[in-house]
Amino acid sequence: MSAYPIILSQLTFTHRDNLSYPYEERGLQFGDGIYEVIRIYDGRYHLFQEHIDRLFRSAEAIKLTLPFTKAEVSEKLLELLEKNDMKADGKVYLQATRGSVKRDHAFPSDDIVANFYAYVEDQSRNLDFLENGVKTITQDDLRWKLCHIKSLNLLPNVLAKQAARENGCYESILHIDGMVTEGSSANIYLVKDGKIYTHPATERILKGCVRMLVERLADKLNIPFVEETFTLDDIKTADEMFLTSSTSEVMPIIEVDSAQVADGKPGSITRQLQKAYEVDAQITQNTMKETV
Amino acid sequence: MSAYPIILSQLTFTHRDNLSYPYEERGLQFGDGIYEVIRIYDGRYHLFQEHIDRLFRSAEAIKLTLPFTKAEVSEKLLELLEKNDMKADGKVYLQATRGSVKRDHAFPSDDIVANFYAYVEDQSRNLDFLENGVKTITQDDLRWKLCHIKSLNLLPNVLAKQAARENGCYESILHIDGMVTEGSSANIYLVKDGKIYTHPATERILKGCVRMLVERLADKLNIPFVEETFTLDDIKTADEMFLTSSTSEVMPIIEVDSAQVADGKPGSITRQLQKAYEVDAQITQNTMKETV
Repeated sequence: MSAYPIILSQLTFTHRDNLSYPYEERGLQFGDGIYEVIRIYDGRYHLFQEHIDRLFRSAEAIKLTLPFTKAEVSEKLLELLEKNDMKADGKVYLQATRGSVKRDHAFPSDDIVANFYAYVEDQSRNLDFLENGVKTITQDDLRWKLCHIKSLNLLPNVLAKQAARENGCYESILHIDGMVTEGSSANIYLVKDGKIYTHPATERILKGCVRMLVERLADKLNIPFVEETFTLDDIKTADEMFLTSSTSEVMPIIEVDSAQVADGKPGSITRQLQKAYEVDAQITQNTMKETV
Repeated sequence: MSAYPIILSQLTFTHRDNLSYPYEERGLQFGDGIYEVIRIYDGRYHLFQEHIDRLFRSAEAIKLTLPFTKAEVSEKLLELLEKNDMKADGKVYLQATRGSVKRDHAFPSDDIVANFYAYVEDQSRNLDFLENGVKTITQDDLRWKLCHIKSLNLLPNVLAKQAARENGCYESILHIDGMVTEGSSANIYLVKDGKIYTHPATERILKGCVRMLVERLADKLNIPFVEETFTLDDIKTADEMFLTSSTSEVMPIIEVDSAQVADGKPGSITRQLQKAYEVDAQITQNTMKETV
């Protein structure tokens, strides 16, 4: 049983047991939809507007008409936390698909309304990983060419994440011919000579909301944020590496393909960003150790 | 109401109204699954074994354990036609996903069983298009790199098909830097100097069951079947073009991006293949006109 049984189905609140989908549903048969995961700290959304904005950008990119405005869905998502008396650290998952309708590749007629749902889950901060860092492997980036859209076509991401797990790792670093794009569910960064490098926000990567935050934090900290691709070879001489996502935050990478990154310990720029992240997100409970 | 209300849910027969999926389902949240569409003529499956074999190849490629053997699912799919008293031209749609379970990119634990369903629909042969040919447009192939897997990650295919429809066309011809791969839901062929050219069956295309049949038919007819990529430029001097899929059969292409293919009429090799297809599929009703 979920601790947060009230979910959104379209913009209506319902009990989680009441929502199901017919088998003729474009999400289920084509992955024809988009999604977001928004972090919650102490019952408050983090980077809320950024995620709502991206939801609408993704919808526009796949020509999906959402049956609500940003203001309408925002209000309901805020109410969702209240209805569930959500006070802890967690996340909300939300998705929109092109509706339930007889299967045909082309878009359905205009009277078929997009399906939307959102639900809340507990998710505590992974302080062990945040403090000690995580191991990664590298994998070919097999994804389609429009990765800036946060779509439900996630099979390559699933396969890459599974490969990481089978190798006892937290994440897969994806690359195209040796050029690092991003992770299976995170943006990837390399630090060298005091500068942060990451793949430019082209159609090849998802422009993460935490990535946008890291750019702002780096600016405040006077650390150059360079949108330049780096290669698998560059990793061998990196000073630091880290990844970001809404649930992973700013996560140190200490190993890539069984080789240590620098001395195999989280680096100082990563640490500065982690501290700045906690301040920005107003995290007061479950914080990282002061000694870190 | 469906004319064929009895569907398969796992290997059990049920009424179509009884099957629904929870919102935490890997098909719906990741497109983490595979599918097949099998043609039915006069209540008989066409290329049945080929489709069953491909279902299992796709499952293996994404490391999905199907909860049945080929013999078991084949028996149930045959029974599905009987239970619905299916005697007409139609198709069966079937898919398998990695199960309904709390969302996490990596594979679920082994106790989560794959979800499978199959249902029957009417689909008459499109004799008008088969006789007169169809128009097409060209589109960038935006898909992932493992297109030999018949996966549920079909968003790029959906967008390409929609682009075709918006241009009054039947199909989009996909290309990577001008090299034709296939269509959004069909294999694509070019005829030049008496030879049939089509993209090699690499990971870049789905090896269609009708494509395999066309290869056999061409062999019987002593028409060379050449697995060689052709380009958008080659189309300008093509003698004929056609596409194949389980529902489109052998379909003449008479126009690409508003330019006629040769004289803008179905070609003679296409016609020979169409006739041979009808014989192979034992189509006795709703056949193409003798005069064609």
